[in-house]
Amino acid sequence: MIAPRRAFASDNNAGVHPEVLAAVVAANGGHAPAYGSDDLTDRLQTLVKEEFGPDAEAFPLFNGTGGNVVALGSLCRAWEAVVCADVAHVNADEGAAPEAMAGLKLMTVPAPDGKLTAALVETQAWGFDDIHRARPAVVSITQSTEMGMVYTPAEIRALADQAHAHGMRLHVDGARLANAAAALGVSLGEITSRAGADIVTFGGTKNGALGAEAVITFDPELAAAVSRMRKTCGQLASKMRFVSAQFVALLTDHLWQRNAAHANAMAARLGAAVQGIPGVTLCRPVQANAVFAVLPRDTTARLQARQRFYIWNQATGEVRWMCSWDTTPADVDAFAADVARAASP
Amino acid sequence: MIAPRRAFASDNNAGVHPEVLAAVVAANGGHAPAYGSDDLTDRLQTLVKEEFGPDAEAFPLFNGTGGNVVALGSLCRAWEAVVCADVAHVNADEGAAPEAMAGLKLMTVPAPDGKLTAALVETQAWGFDDIHRARPAVVSITQSTEMGMVYTPAEIRALADQAHAHGMRLHVDGARLANAAAALGVSLGEITSRAGADIVTFGGTKNGALGAEAVITFDPELAAAVSRMRKTCGQLASKMRFVSAQFVALLTDHLWQRNAAHANAMAARLGAAVQGIPGVTLCRPVQANAVFAVLPRDTTARLQARQRFYIWNQATGEVRWMCSWDTTPADVDAFAADVARAASP
Amino acid sequence: MIAPRRAFASDNNAGVHPEVLAAVVAANGGHAPAYGSDDLTDRLQTLVKEEFGPDAEAFPLFNGTGGNVVALGSLCRAWEAVVCADVAHVNADEGAAPEAMAGLKLMTVPAPDGKLTAALVETQAWGFDDIHRARPAVVSITQSTEMGMVYTPAEIRALADQAHAHGMRLHVDGARLANAAAALGVSLGEITSRAGADIVTFGGTKNGALGAEAVITFDPELAAAVSRMRKTCGQLASKMRFVSAQFVALLTDHLWQRNAAHANAMAARLGAAVQGIPGVTLCRPVQANAVFAVLPRDTTARLQARQRFYIWNQATGEVRWMCSWDTTPADVDAFAADVARAASP
Amino acid sequence: MIAPRRAFASDNNAGVHPEVLAAVVAANGGHAPAYGSDDLTDRLQTLVKEEFGPDAEAFPLFNGTGGNVVALGSLCRAWEAVVCADVAHVNADEGAAPEAMAGLKLMTVPAPDGKLTAALVETQAWGFDDIHRARPAVVSITQSTEMGMVYTPAEIRALADQAHAHGMRLHVDGARLANAAAALGVSLGEITSRAGADIVTFGGTKNGALGAEAVITFDPELAAAVSRMRKTCGQLASKMRFVSAQFVALLTDHLWQRNAAHANAMAARLGAAVQGIPGVTLCRPVQANAVFAVLPRDTTARLQARQRFYIWNQATGEVRWMCSWDTTPADVDAFAADVARAASP
Repeated sequence: MIAPRRAFASDNNAGVHPEVLAAVVAANGGHAPAYGSDDLTDRLQTLVKEEFGPDAEAFPLFNGTGGNVVALGSLCRAWEAVVCADVAHVNADEGAAPEAMAGLKLMTVPAPDGKLTAALVETQAWGFDDIHRARPAVVSITQSTEMGMVYTPAEIRALADQAHAHGMRLHVDGARLANAAAALGVSLGEITSRAGADIVTFGGTKNGALGAEAVITFDPELAAAVSRMRKTCGQLASKMRFVSAQFVALLTDHLWQRNAAHANAMAARLGAAVQGIPGVTLCRPVQANAVFAVLPRDTTARLQARQRFYIWNQATGEVRWMCSWDTTPADVDAFAADVARAASP
Repeated sequence: MIAPRRAFASDNNAGVHPEVLAAVVAANGGHAPAYGSDDLTDRLQTLVKEEFGPDAEAFPLFNGTGGNVVALGSLCRAWEAVVCADVAHVNADEGAAPEAMAGLKLMTVPAPDGKLTAALVETQAWGFDDIHRARPAVVSITQSTEMGMVYTPAEIRALADQAHAHGMRLHVDGARLANAAAALGVSLGEITSRAGADIVTFGGTKNGALGAEAVITFDPELAAAVSRMRKTCGQLASKMRFVSAQFVALLTDHLWQRNAAHANAMAARLGAAVQGIPGVTLCRPVQANAVFAVLPRDTTARLQARQRFYIWNQATGEVRWMCSWDTTPADVDAFAADVARAASP
Repeated sequence: MIAPRRAFASDNNAGVHPEVLAAVVAANGGHAPAYGSDDLTDRLQTLVKEEFGPDAEAFPLFNGTGGNVVALGSLCRAWEAVVCADVAHVNADEGAAPEAMAGLKLMTVPAPDGKLTAALVETQAWGFDDIHRARPAVVSITQSTEMGMVYTPAEIRALADQAHAHGMRLHVDGARLANAAAALGVSLGEITSRAGADIVTFGGTKNGALGAEAVITFDPELAAAVSRMRKTCGQLASKMRFVSAQFVALLTDHLWQRNAAHANAMAARLGAAVQGIPGVTLCRPVQANAVFAVLPRDTTARLQARQRFYIWNQATGEVRWMCSWDTTPADVDAFAADVARAASP
Repeated sequence: MIAPRRAFASDNNAGVHPEVLAAVVAANGGHAPAYGSDDLTDRLQTLVKEEFGPDAEAFPLFNGTGGNVVALGSLCRAWEAVVCADVAHVNADEGAAPEAMAGLKLMTVPAPDGKLTAALVETQAWGFDDIHRARPAVVSITQSTEMGMVYTPAEIRALADQAHAHGMRLHVDGARLANAAAALGVSLGEITSRAGADIVTFGGTKNGALGAEAVITFDPELAAAVSRMRKTCGQLASKMRFVSAQFVALLTDHLWQRNAAHANAMAARLGAAVQGIPGVTLCRPVQANAVFAVLPRDTTARLQARQRFYIWNQATGEVRWMCSWDTTPADVDAFAADVARAASP
């Protein structure tokens, strides 16, 4: 019933990695306490501490919007605000969920490649005692960004230090945290807890899970808030063992890294394959699993007749091609050949 | 890793029915469009129309809290309110999610067995034009109730007619809708759409799914609102095919009914087995898959040393025993024997 | 243009006491910094400290709904709840404002005369660590209650101690705080700060102001939250000097007490005058400025042809008569005569 | 107690116009029904229809934040959004009130002088059927803008037509609507209802009131929503006659126009007086009652030693000088002389 064809539309169009699916199947059988009091969720806590450090605690939940709202809502009182890039998923792709579910005010910063810098943050991180202005309380970054760019550990450390100097906290939307860590060749902790981040939304779904994200905290007070906020946001799974099982699989034998590194490699291969094609311009270096390119409109039209993908910016003709854990070199080569054909019909 | 022992603590402690798990596994392979544009979600719409009527549309989502908030939030403007039983899940067991996520005001009615009646609804359904009072806009009932009671089609029709006469709408929290329908020997539509209900939260999780609920609508305008509200509440699954697959399995070959009828039968068996035990008093007839009993405190203490279950009311000594799709007659008999032993040590 | 007739419909139908109006007029002239940085608001802080104690800080705002939501919203995180009487203004008369503006969950307790007791509070103050239940964080009482009853200092102390023992806090909705203090012959501090209350909504409007309420805090951390929450709830007056001037007048030469004591005396006079009338039954002792009575329906109908007042309970025939700072003995006597006439036509 | 000195810090530092204050005083005496059922509020409706057209209905309330949130919250469902300038009061100066009170998502557009244009609106008014994006439902403009600029009737008509073509609605934040109308020499209706606006927040406070704003609607369905939303947002005055009286005064004998035209004239005089001063650069034409200028930093420092005003932009050295209904030519001339002295010490 499911079309077997793999496309480059989105990394959430891919299915479930066999090791993850096997873990879900293995989690079945018998009864287990609901809501996280099960053995698999216990096991996940151990693995998360190994990866993110001894103070890390994981709160598995359903999806990225839920994870971001739970994390940010745990950090903010009603009068506080979140500084983020205008293209950040939390601002641009989650409907009005942050505002409607948790009353969050987002203070957006234009950031063409989705990366915040110290200077960009400063355009919003001021007026902390101004009663007429929501108090900036959190800097939220996406790693890797919506435009496929990766923050280095040093860049994250600098943003964390800046946030903390302002009395703010640093949130990492890590829907593709694995891709960033794999690209940098570092552990998940090196670009989060050990770089000064206060809280992370850690994405499993795009990394080969069936549907699993987790908020990761590094101090007990914030963990207590997240524990409550997860329930308050309708993100507490009753049969949580099946969510935790997915993360246990991803954190076992570095599956998260294998999947991410593979997707990144496929994007690099795709970038290399298309950049010589006449009329095709890569918008920025390929750092993770996304390739953004500007194509002539008729090239795009011809290509879309054969391949499913998103036009990211109607005005500039920019398109997005995403690679997944299951993208094959043959998929890439066939796609690049289609691009070439569409460019020179 | 998972203890194989089946207990009577909750029907969400059970695992996944093999047919559902097989459907999830079968849904894997290849790419599928995300967010519901996949073949399995299409297939689900067909099955839902067969069960709930031609105008039915299903919005799969993650959990019961999410489903109730999405449904009620789609029905209410900021100044409107929901009339429900004080023991209703939406009031008593969803934290502050309805209020915090969607600003919902709940007007509660004391209802010892969780069932609303015309008279109970009237205690709150008034003052529609009183500016100082939130306008009652929805009557929300739970089918079967948190106390294991079942509304008949006629009872639901009467509540729907009453609600509509007031310009209100009827919401059915059907976390255990299957149990009610199976107990009554009717289709899911006969106690929802065909009885006048306007919207339903249809539960799959307790019926043998891995984690799947759905909001079901019966008119296009409300469907459009739910479609938006699901996203706004962080309840839109990216890899939705795996959620829809669960419902497709439950709605195929009457699996929902088989599972529910079995759980109900086990509860009936348990009720019959314990009601002769000295000191054990059943609180109300066993209509679905729940057995509520009052036990002497020392009996409860001895029984809890051997079996996991919840004390429902510390003041009265009432306990709750839930049966699941996977409860076996042997489980019931062993449990009843434990009750007898605890009652006469 | 305004009908000069004084009625017994509500104490907010009365106008402004001349001393308050004079203070408003005197506040005019020249420029003053907005949002509370003016001399009159400074002066108010001094007077509030004299009345409520040295740690008291006043946050003037617009109305009672705003005051209650600001106070309760400052105390609660998203996952916390407020225990209050079902007839409490915050539950019964503020529309869905608490839920919609601040996501507040109200856990209501049936309390026929509006007074909470230790036993009533305990019916909701439990399950603090139960993730499925909003955490009870505040006990909110109304002084005097919506049914005209007064809490003694000892009763408030007991509720405060109980709340604090649970890790909760005590909020006093003092829309008619002056009436209660005057009835008890105590200062405003003796039934709030000195009785253990953590925060107060102090009402000026019904006490002779034009439109002025204030949240009063007793510790700096909560004050900081209220300062922010007042803005966040749209309750920060730009020309605040005119709001503060009203409270300065009420707190000068005990105007608050004179006004409240007079209204109370008029209610006592009315209660005494009507209680001998055949068919008229006082529902409870007259303790503040409200008289509640049950009348035969035809008596009520005849009386409403001559006098404006509210039927409080259609089912029982209970009516409410409110006395104001400007009610005269002659008003009372004429009203009582109308009652007598209506009772024996 | 109040310093009589008039400054140029803000038009809300001014007091109450004598005709308004007289109307408030005259509104006192006797009882009047609360919450808007009084004669003065009736009278206001008549005056509002004369000014804004026969379908206009006024909802008096407390302040601008309240007015904007009530208006926008009445227009939007949870999944909808408001397109506005980044410097709009609703985004930049109301804390997180829109998000926290009403869950409003603001889609901001950089607009240096606060004016939206068709092209600017189009940068956000798209993706109406994209489930991942909050649906743009309202365009909100400020008249006159936070930067002192005025929309002509034709400009408003064009924005209204554009909004309506998208199925959106046009909201006018008219905190200084009177200044704009006076500057253009038109009625209040010509830049609102008759130019296609759907709803208006009409400001009285900066126009000489004590504290009075009103939401104005032009169709019954929206009026019904606003009537409810005003209560839900804690913006319903009990003694409303005193709020309505202020508007009645402003709408009588064109007081709104006299006050606004005077403030505008004083701003024009100030602009003319300072623009020849060396080092002083006016940022844009003076159209209403605001003057924005860039000054050398040391000039600003010297001037602030003698005069109270706000530095609007620390980076550019831009300052804001506001004129009020009570600013005198002598005030202006003395201020301009101080500017000249500060510029050439």
